[in-house]
Amino acid sequence: MGTPIVSASLVTASPPSRAQQMRSFLQRHDLRAWIAWRPDELLMLSGYFPFWGASLLIYFADAEPVLFVPQIEPRDHIPAGLRVQEYPWGDLKCSDPYSALVLAVRDELAKAKVEAEQVGMNPSAARSALPIQAAEQIPIPEGFSARLSALAAKSDAQSQAAFADLYLRKTPEEIDAIRRANRVANVGLQVFFENLKPGIAEAEVAAAVESAIYRQIGRDGIFHSRGWAMVQSGPNSADAGRFNRSTGRRLENGDLVLIELATCVNGYWSDLTRTAAVGTLKAEVEQILAVVRDAHQVAVDAIRPGIPAGHIDALARDKIAAQGLAAFFTHHTGHHVGFRYHDPGFGIVPGGSAKLEPGMVITIEPGVYVPERGGGARIEDNVLVTESDHETLSRIEGSTQQGGRRS
Amino acid sequence: MGTPIVSASLVTASPPSRAQQMRSFLQRHDLRAWIAWRPDELLMLSGYFPFWGASLLIYFADAEPVLFVPQIEPRDHIPAGLRVQEYPWGDLKCSDPYSALVLAVRDELAKAKVEAEQVGMNPSAARSALPIQAAEQIPIPEGFSARLSALAAKSDAQSQAAFADLYLRKTPEEIDAIRRANRVANVGLQVFFENLKPGIAEAEVAAAVESAIYRQIGRDGIFHSRGWAMVQSGPNSADAGRFNRSTGRRLENGDLVLIELATCVNGYWSDLTRTAAVGTLKAEVEQILAVVRDAHQVAVDAIRPGIPAGHIDALARDKIAAQGLAAFFTHHTGHHVGFRYHDPGFGIVPGGSAKLEPGMVITIEPGVYVPERGGGARIEDNVLVTESDHETLSRIEGSTQQGGRRS
Repeated sequence: MGTPIVSASLVTASPPSRAQQMRSFLQRHDLRAWIAWRPDELLMLSGYFPFWGASLLIYFADAEPVLFVPQIEPRDHIPAGLRVQEYPWGDLKCSDPYSALVLAVRDELAKAKVEAEQVGMNPSAARSALPIQAAEQIPIPEGFSARLSALAAKSDAQSQAAFADLYLRKTPEEIDAIRRANRVANVGLQVFFENLKPGIAEAEVAAAVESAIYRQIGRDGIFHSRGWAMVQSGPNSADAGRFNRSTGRRLENGDLVLIELATCVNGYWSDLTRTAAVGTLKAEVEQILAVVRDAHQVAVDAIRPGIPAGHIDALARDKIAAQGLAAFFTHHTGHHVGFRYHDPGFGIVPGGSAKLEPGMVITIEPGVYVPERGGGARIEDNVLVTESDHETLSRIEGSTQQGGRRS
Repeated sequence: MGTPIVSASLVTASPPSRAQQMRSFLQRHDLRAWIAWRPDELLMLSGYFPFWGASLLIYFADAEPVLFVPQIEPRDHIPAGLRVQEYPWGDLKCSDPYSALVLAVRDELAKAKVEAEQVGMNPSAARSALPIQAAEQIPIPEGFSARLSALAAKSDAQSQAAFADLYLRKTPEEIDAIRRANRVANVGLQVFFENLKPGIAEAEVAAAVESAIYRQIGRDGIFHSRGWAMVQSGPNSADAGRFNRSTGRRLENGDLVLIELATCVNGYWSDLTRTAAVGTLKAEVEQILAVVRDAHQVAVDAIRPGIPAGHIDALARDKIAAQGLAAFFTHHTGHHVGFRYHDPGFGIVPGGSAKLEPGMVITIEPGVYVPERGGGARIEDNVLVTESDHETLSRIEGSTQQGGRRS
């Protein structure tokens, strides 16, 4: 594990429960309720992942939460025990369902004798997760959050930032759900490796991966499983530090092939990257893959409570710099993950002083992209910080997938 | 065509070009520029569909438009001839790219001597299309639109509503692009029909459909092709009027099987539904499918310029009511489509007085869902209003797909 830069006292106790974290958050900010409506907020506060993205939860400091769902919401994925209120919906029966919802929320707060000055919320949909119905934005109308804001007058930047901190430490139940998302993602990665043959198009490989992930619905308690796979081969892999997509390019011998794979299972996310070789690589391309593999390994190995993010980043970055390739590692080493494809929270970036804590789940994803060599590589895993060490959630026991494996 | 409720004078000339529509819109609202940044706005105003969703276009009344893209945006799908300005991006090189963007926009407006009071925009991301990177919301930060609003002081509700009207009449080029999206969707529907066998799971059918759509990338000028397929069988099909999803349920003889299919090709959308039978249906289930087929046909047949939306809706609704099933047709008959899965604009709903015009593309999607009979059906096509008649964009010459076909 290298230099002991962390003292034993920094190793904290097991992560507090979600209810404990919320209670402490509400107390610190003099709040008696929080209004959650973004899909990832609902998931974190209640375990419920909305279908339409038009649900809303009042989380009270000293009463049971109340969940409002539109009449058209499916019910079988709402966790048992949640108090559910329905509001009207539909272009024929109710022309303005959100007015009805705002009134119902107002009534519920009044009944609990909670004043607007005691209620917080996040009024913006920006950067939230997409709901199960992921083909378009959440169907909230323009101006909806402004109407809600009158009921949640304590929606200041400070409490919103503190609320975002609640994403950082996952509970054991949440970790299990993220582990399952990674299991499903690995089913997709298996298909990726099986398809790496000269002549197949990037989009064909990606389509097969997504298909394998979707097919997991109905097994292992999974009611929602969707993957976004992006495959870049040969010269296209050198673009993978700027964007990820699949084209019609067909794989050739000597290609590096990179897959960026976002997977959402019942609302919980995995974010993985693998890079593989087709046939024999030129030495200068082989070097890219080898250094990324080394940088990834050294960073993962160093993960444990108390380590500053910047230290993890430096370990990966130094490995790459030692090969003279520093300029081609153009992005962060990692970020938090689990409630979203990219969770809020500190990055694993140069100089990052925030320290890892038990229950955090971060990506480790060093990459090197060299257009003049016609190739790029990234290897990304999702790593849980445990009580005294780490666990790579995305490496599945008995699975054959390896970052940088040759096909 | 039935009663001549439309006079010849209502039949308007061919749809004006996008530039003509914008010029007239800006003039009517005393605007010298419009700031577009929502993916579907960018597409409509410039033909450019953003990868990240972090691009912005200034559309000037009397100068060439300027497109701002982040440094990490791919360039090969930006239409030739657009003036492109890059802004910095990346967690290592620029911690706040949106501040840089706002400053660049301010400078460009100042150079053109356009005042904030002469600039409009839509500040909310609500209900916009997702960009090519569709695994999460557009990456705009909370508060971005507020910072932009200072540069676009004429962002009143009136001009925003008028801007939304620009979505209604598609140009010939846009119609071709929507036609291609429907061609791709039909490749997916072919796979749907081929897979309808007892024993296959809903999610397996849906996965195969999405996969076929993704694989179209690289053909026919297609750089982006993504489908969202939702398959509901047997009793699950009776839920399809409230929500669409796929479960692990396996198809059985006697099932109705419904597919809701959203398809995005290069930014343009198709929205289709088919319902098919597996084996032999009970008479009471067969009746559901038959009446939906009839209601769909009579509504499509009536489409031409000058017909009020409510008339189309009534034709479909009356057919269903005549079978005593009015209570089970719970939603609209249709909506505009093409720039989004659901375009803004008037619905094809009871009493709708807005009249169809050439260039409009609408869905026709009557549905009947009867839980006590264990089945539901919907048939949905995308129909173009032509100069004097209509063209069903989603029925492909030589294709075998039929709504309500038996497998």
